[in-house]
Amino acid sequence: MSQWVYKFGGGSAEGNTSMKNLLGGKGANLAEMASLGLPVPPGFTLTTDVCTYYYDHGEKYPDDMDAQIETGLAHIEQLTGKVFGDAVNPLLVSVRSGARASMPGMMDTVLNLGLNDETVDGLAKLSGDRRFALDSYRRFITMYSDVVMGVHHHTFEDILEDAKLDNGYNLDTQMTASDWEAVIVLYKAAVRDALGRDFPQDAREQLKGAVDAVFGSWMNDRAVVYRNLNDIPAAWGTAVNVQAMVFGNMGDTSATGVAFTRDPSTGENRYYGEFLINAQGEDVVAGIRTPQTLTKESRLEMGDDAPSMEEALPEVYAQLAETFVALEGHYRDMQDIEFTVERGMLWMLQTRTGKRTARAAIKIAVDMAEDGSITTDEALMRIEPLSLDQLLHPTLDPNAVRDLVASGLPASPGAAIGQVVFSSDEAETLAKAGHKVILVRIETSPEDIHGMHAAEAIVTARGGMTSHAAVVARGMGTPCVSGAGTIRIDYAAGQFTCAGRVVKAGDIITVDGATGQVFAGEVAMVLPEMSGDFAKVMQWADDARTMAVRTNAETPLDVQTARDFGAEGIGLCRTEHMFFEADRLAHFREMILADNEEARRDALAKILPVQREDFAAIFRVMEGRPCTIRLLDPPLHEFLPHAEADIEALAETLKLPASELMARARELAETNPMLGHRGCRLGISYPEIYEMQARAILEAQALVSKESGINPIAEIMIPLVSSEKELELLKAHIDAVAADIDVSDYTVGTMIELPRAALRADRIAEFAAFFSFGTNDLTQTTYGLSRDDAGKFLPDYVRAGIMEKDPFVTLDQDGVGDLIRIAVERGRATKPDLKLGICGEHGGDPASIDFCQRVGLNYVSCSPYRVPIARLAAAQAAIRAKGL
Amino acid sequence: MSQWVYKFGGGSAEGNTSMKNLLGGKGANLAEMASLGLPVPPGFTLTTDVCTYYYDHGEKYPDDMDAQIETGLAHIEQLTGKVFGDAVNPLLVSVRSGARASMPGMMDTVLNLGLNDETVDGLAKLSGDRRFALDSYRRFITMYSDVVMGVHHHTFEDILEDAKLDNGYNLDTQMTASDWEAVIVLYKAAVRDALGRDFPQDAREQLKGAVDAVFGSWMNDRAVVYRNLNDIPAAWGTAVNVQAMVFGNMGDTSATGVAFTRDPSTGENRYYGEFLINAQGEDVVAGIRTPQTLTKESRLEMGDDAPSMEEALPEVYAQLAETFVALEGHYRDMQDIEFTVERGMLWMLQTRTGKRTARAAIKIAVDMAEDGSITTDEALMRIEPLSLDQLLHPTLDPNAVRDLVASGLPASPGAAIGQVVFSSDEAETLAKAGHKVILVRIETSPEDIHGMHAAEAIVTARGGMTSHAAVVARGMGTPCVSGAGTIRIDYAAGQFTCAGRVVKAGDIITVDGATGQVFAGEVAMVLPEMSGDFAKVMQWADDARTMAVRTNAETPLDVQTARDFGAEGIGLCRTEHMFFEADRLAHFREMILADNEEARRDALAKILPVQREDFAAIFRVMEGRPCTIRLLDPPLHEFLPHAEADIEALAETLKLPASELMARARELAETNPMLGHRGCRLGISYPEIYEMQARAILEAQALVSKESGINPIAEIMIPLVSSEKELELLKAHIDAVAADIDVSDYTVGTMIELPRAALRADRIAEFAAFFSFGTNDLTQTTYGLSRDDAGKFLPDYVRAGIMEKDPFVTLDQDGVGDLIRIAVERGRATKPDLKLGICGEHGGDPASIDFCQRVGLNYVSCSPYRVPIARLAAAQAAIRAKGL
Repeated sequence: MSQWVYKFGGGSAEGNTSMKNLLGGKGANLAEMASLGLPVPPGFTLTTDVCTYYYDHGEKYPDDMDAQIETGLAHIEQLTGKVFGDAVNPLLVSVRSGARASMPGMMDTVLNLGLNDETVDGLAKLSGDRRFALDSYRRFITMYSDVVMGVHHHTFEDILEDAKLDNGYNLDTQMTASDWEAVIVLYKAAVRDALGRDFPQDAREQLKGAVDAVFGSWMNDRAVVYRNLNDIPAAWGTAVNVQAMVFGNMGDTSATGVAFTRDPSTGENRYYGEFLINAQGEDVVAGIRTPQTLTKESRLEMGDDAPSMEEALPEVYAQLAETFVALEGHYRDMQDIEFTVERGMLWMLQTRTGKRTARAAIKIAVDMAEDGSITTDEALMRIEPLSLDQLLHPTLDPNAVRDLVASGLPASPGAAIGQVVFSSDEAETLAKAGHKVILVRIETSPEDIHGMHAAEAIVTARGGMTSHAAVVARGMGTPCVSGAGTIRIDYAAGQFTCAGRVVKAGDIITVDGATGQVFAGEVAMVLPEMSGDFAKVMQWADDARTMAVRTNAETPLDVQTARDFGAEGIGLCRTEHMFFEADRLAHFREMILADNEEARRDALAKILPVQREDFAAIFRVMEGRPCTIRLLDPPLHEFLPHAEADIEALAETLKLPASELMARARELAETNPMLGHRGCRLGISYPEIYEMQARAILEAQALVSKESGINPIAEIMIPLVSSEKELELLKAHIDAVAADIDVSDYTVGTMIELPRAALRADRIAEFAAFFSFGTNDLTQTTYGLSRDDAGKFLPDYVRAGIMEKDPFVTLDQDGVGDLIRIAVERGRATKPDLKLGICGEHGGDPASIDFCQRVGLNYVSCSPYRVPIARLAAAQAAIRAKGL
Repeated sequence: MSQWVYKFGGGSAEGNTSMKNLLGGKGANLAEMASLGLPVPPGFTLTTDVCTYYYDHGEKYPDDMDAQIETGLAHIEQLTGKVFGDAVNPLLVSVRSGARASMPGMMDTVLNLGLNDETVDGLAKLSGDRRFALDSYRRFITMYSDVVMGVHHHTFEDILEDAKLDNGYNLDTQMTASDWEAVIVLYKAAVRDALGRDFPQDAREQLKGAVDAVFGSWMNDRAVVYRNLNDIPAAWGTAVNVQAMVFGNMGDTSATGVAFTRDPSTGENRYYGEFLINAQGEDVVAGIRTPQTLTKESRLEMGDDAPSMEEALPEVYAQLAETFVALEGHYRDMQDIEFTVERGMLWMLQTRTGKRTARAAIKIAVDMAEDGSITTDEALMRIEPLSLDQLLHPTLDPNAVRDLVASGLPASPGAAIGQVVFSSDEAETLAKAGHKVILVRIETSPEDIHGMHAAEAIVTARGGMTSHAAVVARGMGTPCVSGAGTIRIDYAAGQFTCAGRVVKAGDIITVDGATGQVFAGEVAMVLPEMSGDFAKVMQWADDARTMAVRTNAETPLDVQTARDFGAEGIGLCRTEHMFFEADRLAHFREMILADNEEARRDALAKILPVQREDFAAIFRVMEGRPCTIRLLDPPLHEFLPHAEADIEALAETLKLPASELMARARELAETNPMLGHRGCRLGISYPEIYEMQARAILEAQALVSKESGINPIAEIMIPLVSSEKELELLKAHIDAVAADIDVSDYTVGTMIELPRAALRADRIAEFAAFFSFGTNDLTQTTYGLSRDDAGKFLPDYVRAGIMEKDPFVTLDQDGVGDLIRIAVERGRATKPDLKLGICGEHGGDPASIDFCQRVGLNYVSCSPYRVPIARLAAAQAAIRAKGL
């Protein structure tokens, strides 16, 4: 005989906290608290196995379940001294669902079950409060009819409104016992009208209906969609908890409250919570009355008049505080607790690990590790890496008044205030003149880099989380809202409109990159604090992790920021940015427009000294740490202007016919630039470009080595390789340059960013000292999905439940990850000491970092502001790999 | 002691034809002929092992090689009765390279080696012809100095020209013995001047020099590049053949000639060849004298006056004819033979399998199979599948006069004549009026389909072998020259220019798609003949092959053509073409521009009956053979006009503001359309499109089944799937449509054309009845290479030796093929009976078809005109798989 029912209460329980799969989260924790001897209203849990059985057998229950439910009810009756369905001494129960994971969309709770026309009198007499009993009954009819019987709660709200109107009342509290009595008659009639049958009066029939409703809701549309999106198997099922009711609204010695064992906002080790005298849980949530503080200390701090629980109910408070200590000691983590006091008697209704801010997570983890409650490994596992982002950027003051003008995607966190500008040139000019500017563009391109650098924040009307604006902004640590699709930018008029509002160039706006919101005017800000605890956590993380953390950076500012955040090297220095600055773009365009190798070499020779100095600056900051420098990657047309006026201006400058320039631009244009003449294909067509870059890198290395005595580590990286022959040929060119300069202390490696490169890793490894997985492009090619275009249909995909996560944010481990696994295996088979890293955007994503650890990479590389996140995520990955 | 030297001659040999790897092709066949007792001038072969040893040991020879060469020379001396270097009775030898595969770029031949100032007198006396001896000597000095010593042959040609001028001669034949004597003195002086040393007089030194030159040339740049391009390992090495000279120029009983044992042009079983009395081999090639026919029959046919060899040298001819029979019987294939007659004595200098036209290949194979010389399997292996192309299209008369105006890529074979038109509308109008037109465009797009259908041939200025024009033209069997980069088209002026010539609309041109040439005016044509032998070969191929052959076709004409060529089903019916015809494009555009589902459904409902009739027509032709129909694939913007004027015209038609239409077109435009909103992504975003298509297919199936009693087999194919969830969802939609119509006799499958689909094949197979590998897109994504853009840099790749073959023509087995292997394994692991096919362009490429056989596909599918090629290639693949 299977056990379908697990009883708890009276100082013991058949289940415990480790049985979450069988009892659900709520049921397991109720059992655990009962076993700990804490005051838990007695009850029982119908297991998730019942749910599985129910769906496996055409929505039928196991034969022996009803008998076990009777045993469970008898257990509650025995402990409470009340009888389920008894008119004189009625037992009331709550029925709650409880899955392994929190599941929105399912039936949640039915309270006061067991009330009917007779037991309501019993409750009135027991409580000595007829109005309370009738109020409970009408609430039960509403709740049960709505969630169990499918009569919409509006039906009952309408009846209540009419009754209040008839009586000239404004508030429910004005309703008397006899008013409720009249309403209940109408409620029951409404149920009969709607369903053609009476509201069930039999307590057991009520219970059966509630249990059916919970199990039935497991397969409703909302729950199914939620599970699909969150990868929760339908086979998990839900449990049902049936528990004796306790009442916090039985007079002045009754109360209800919620509490955290530590401050969930700051992490301070002091109790934090709210309670209400003579109230039920829903009253706290409803916000009709102002809750009171738990402790006197809190009350004094807040200047509150109403007494704290510590003062109002000192004995129960002392018992509650003891319970806090017991629960935190038992669960070894901060707890989020619900309790009710019924006539001076404390009852625990729920405990679970409490949610907390990033700041609190760090403080709690550090405090508990330092007092020996948990290990440093456990402390590290308790902090959500992505939450650190909140601590690394200024944020809006949560209490500030806001005037929202537009919303988009939270593309790069942080908040900033400035005046609106619509062109990158203007952004630069105004910034140089000391103004703070916000760059607002339909979208950005590499030509906007100088404006993006100058801006405090960036807003674009188009583009997703991985659009040019978003990627560059994150790299710079500049707040960015991308894809604010409702704004219409009119460059000519120098303004944008959004929902009828007009914002002009020069107007002040505030941008919150963490939420994707744009506000009119200045919104007050809070600056980030790198507390001592933060530094401690980072140190523990560095001790725990086995993968190195590098950064994707190329400007001296970004490189320095990344160093300050603890980057151990550069994983991706994108040299194309080095061609866009004004002092070289002209020469580079000259090279593009040259029609023979000699003219190209002449133009490149002018860029060489500038680029050498760029690399020297990076080497100086990195002080001997490895620097992976990627040679030119984007197609040449990205360096030419596109607008007719710009082309004419450039033609004027270069003293070329505009028609010729336009023809060249047209010639260079590509149908699919992502799959076009770029990456090492440029190096094959124009070897002189890569030769100049190699020379600049190696000469800078020699220079810095000489001036500082520290030898920079240059790792020259060839992009977009698809065949070993490309790498062989281009490596030979670089080696020839090195031989010419007479240096030898460098390595040559490649990006693995095309499926073919992953598949041919065994051959490519013959010529590569290292692989760096360029997972942005690898995702694009593996999925056949353009980052720039996917924004149009990915929402359809998420809606249809096809794609759970944006594969440009979190690595697609099944597909792209499979190619990485293949490349790692094949590459290392050829060269066991092959150095392996990742430099796509995924290098800063915790789930992807965990994958990198499992697949055996040596390092991850991410944008400067992601470095602390990556350090923590890498530590967690290493700890997980140890099997914690 | 290793054997470095293999002797042959005098009725025996140490080697044989199976030793090509060791002796090279030439050496092995000389040995074989010698063993057969045929008259082969005695000689020996220095093996390819010598070459390998030479390069493995820093360009040194094995110690014992010289001694073995001496043995070889002694062998020749013994059989010829002459002595190497002897002044009275000199032995002269030829030195020839001979690798396993023919190798342009290497040193080829030195003749008359052994001549010097003394032996030339001996030769004069032996031959009784002093002028002949001196002429041989001066030729030897020129040839040897040039290829062995590096003195350019121009040096000698200049001296000879001067001598002729001085003497007032026009022709070499006017030179007397004493003239040659004088020239030889100047030749030797020139060598001394150039090198500071004398022309070598010692015969053994000459021989050593020639051997060095052959082995040295194995590693020269041209040979290395050739090997890289043709995948020939350097380790193969070359052999060197040293052989006694024989002279066809020793008077009227001497002769030299070349012969084929069957007619290499028609395949007829009769001797075919040419010879010259009193001449050396090079005279036949030089074309100074007109060669005579071999047989009397040929002479009479050609109306030739000069006697045939059969008549002039009847005894030797009889001996030669016997040799032909012996060789063909021995090698079991048509032979290409070189021979020399020295004073009535026949000498065989070479035999090898003869090259032949497609027509000849078929006739020879069929004849030999039918007379039992070879099996039908062997017959099939003897025909190059791609060569069949020559037989399937009209071709230019090889004897016609031509006036070339432009050249491009041979994008689709066949020849056509017509008047130039520059727009598809005009092409259609003129064609309807009975004119034959050639459509000339900068490039084509799907909007040109009607014009391409109407045209006799297509010429484009841009695009490669797999551009839109090329692919569509091949599919239609229409001749096409693509990427004729030198022509400049001026649509406005209605003309194109090329190298200064102007061709106007209406001018007649001739297009040869097989060579990529465009000619002014009409060039005479030859029509294709499907001979009985062709049909026989196809029948044998069908019996031998295990893979089915389907076609990629959708118009009734193409489907019928493919059936006539033997297609066993449709592997790819591209339904997008069905939206482009005039009677539905307007409705489809209406759908694209609709802003809600209802309006889209209304527009689609108008297309449904037309599309249903399209499918019915296909089902009728295919008479119960399987038809794989791909649902809409290209992005919607391809269906909208792009030019401003076209947009305005459309806006007028649709009664929409042009600005709105332009905005929608801009909204739909994509940065990388190849990776954009297309394929099943459209089916996810607009389920109503796929539902309409599924309905049209299934209703057409029911219709044709009812009218003919033959049930069409519909295989509905979902394109661009990257995740099993896409397929699951879309299959459910199709199943719902089928349930609605109440049909069940169809299957749903998917293209595998993205790397992720290949990797996830195990999961995708859960919902797919079949996979069809879309290797065009799979190649694009695996390589990260856009077909439309690759043309700009692939030439650089070929030049650098990085890419051997265009991966869009021949499947990249290492990379793309690896993904196919993975997909086959994983797909069949889930569903062992999964039906697997290929429908990319590669389905018509023999090397790729061989791969498909090895990897276990069930069928290949190709354009209609490729079907016979694919049938033969599939047969060859099956025969190879059996281990033949």
